[in-house]
Amino acid sequence: MASQRYKLTLAYRGTHYHGWQRQSFTDNYTGPKPPAGHGIPTIQEIVSRAIEYTTRHPIRLVGSSRTDSGVHAKGQLAHFDTTITQIPPDDFRRAINNALPDDIIIRKVQPVDDSFDVITCAQSKRYQYAIWTETDRPVFFPDLAWHRWKPLDVASMREAARRLVGEHDFASFSRPHHKREHTIRTVRSCAISQRGPLLVIGVEGNGFLWNMVRIIAGTLVEVGSGRFEPADIDAMLAARDRRAAGMTAPPQGLYLQWIQTFEPE
Amino acid sequence: MASQRYKLTLAYRGTHYHGWQRQSFTDNYTGPKPPAGHGIPTIQEIVSRAIEYTTRHPIRLVGSSRTDSGVHAKGQLAHFDTTITQIPPDDFRRAINNALPDDIIIRKVQPVDDSFDVITCAQSKRYQYAIWTETDRPVFFPDLAWHRWKPLDVASMREAARRLVGEHDFASFSRPHHKREHTIRTVRSCAISQRGPLLVIGVEGNGFLWNMVRIIAGTLVEVGSGRFEPADIDAMLAARDRRAAGMTAPPQGLYLQWIQTFEPE
Repeated sequence: MASQRYKLTLAYRGTHYHGWQRQSFTDNYTGPKPPAGHGIPTIQEIVSRAIEYTTRHPIRLVGSSRTDSGVHAKGQLAHFDTTITQIPPDDFRRAINNALPDDIIIRKVQPVDDSFDVITCAQSKRYQYAIWTETDRPVFFPDLAWHRWKPLDVASMREAARRLVGEHDFASFSRPHHKREHTIRTVRSCAISQRGPLLVIGVEGNGFLWNMVRIIAGTLVEVGSGRFEPADIDAMLAARDRRAAGMTAPPQGLYLQWIQTFEPE
Repeated sequence: MASQRYKLTLAYRGTHYHGWQRQSFTDNYTGPKPPAGHGIPTIQEIVSRAIEYTTRHPIRLVGSSRTDSGVHAKGQLAHFDTTITQIPPDDFRRAINNALPDDIIIRKVQPVDDSFDVITCAQSKRYQYAIWTETDRPVFFPDLAWHRWKPLDVASMREAARRLVGEHDFASFSRPHHKREHTIRTVRSCAISQRGPLLVIGVEGNGFLWNMVRIIAGTLVEVGSGRFEPADIDAMLAARDRRAAGMTAPPQGLYLQWIQTFEPE
């Protein structure tokens, strides 16, 4: 039977989901029990179900980044194969969106070659980390930014951010785990923009380790509050030890902004 | 015992509350049963409890506007009396805020004269109504704006808005109920601002009838979509009949922006 691969670009508010990755029901999960055959609410689970509701056959949805619980995405990528080949992509997009909840949306559906893979074809990614610096907490969006009410020295934070740019071993800026080959990554840019009480740290690179952007954000905030000097970043990188860097910032400030891929010939 | 009256300025995201007004447990309410002696979750209920946690004696909290379920406030006013008279207002504010959930905050606490009353001293109020006009739904704030994905003729909406300004009988723009003396109100301004896909209708007046801003917003949107002409507004006002005006816009787009009061001598 003819099969077609589709690339999806999607956005979601991670607040009410247990991250991207599909998970079966476990004792750690305290929410309502999902229906038989379904896992706990994750983005992959909910989007898979919405696609299957449209295709009427099981699919396997592959995501480019495994965003953690509470983390948001403006431009996550995913792909899947289906026997549905005749539908115009934008009609397909609308059909899936109609089966999705309010806080997840497919921005784009594109037919791609079977050799295209959102994991292996990812070339660069960009994350944003949002910090709300007003004394009063962000009443309208407590789940969309990290609230830091003590004054931050943004000039120091910017100097520290510059020291992270380049090819480095980011072992100190990662939660340790054993499935990766190495911890060397290239950060192409790391910069801070400010609009009123909102600080946004933008980090772009060829790939990211687990919790890397959240540890970068937490460390930069600790530079801003005076716990570290900007120059300490060099020693942190050299240490290759998680304990050398600063705190891990909470998930609600983190947004996967976009992922660039190359298209295989 | 000495008593002091305090005026509160507060902001809240109405999403998770059954409006301002305290309500006892009823059969209509489907949420979790509140503890004995407490009502269902309303802003007045939650703020009263937070104040009483601080004052250690029962208080009666009077709000200036009874916002409906799902409606937000940037500057609601309230007052209450307490025997706590020695505490600096900002310390009092911080103590109450520490006892409030993430989506409610006291912006200001001011000691006022006993004759000050947030209802009778209210001189003018301003509301905002937020409409998200992008085709894609607002994934990050589904509960903070009304999503209208069909194109709106903003110029027609502006012309219609101008016809609402002035002293009129707004009976057609109100949900009927019998506790009010009359339905004549003065709208001081009604204007529409646009920033990207976000339309905001701002309405300022000396007082508002029940659902008045939501019916104004719903009617202006129906002018924008071509169901009504701007000139139809005059006939709607003249009819003094709810059925003459347009639809009631949903609660999630509505914000009570501010209330101006005069201070009694």
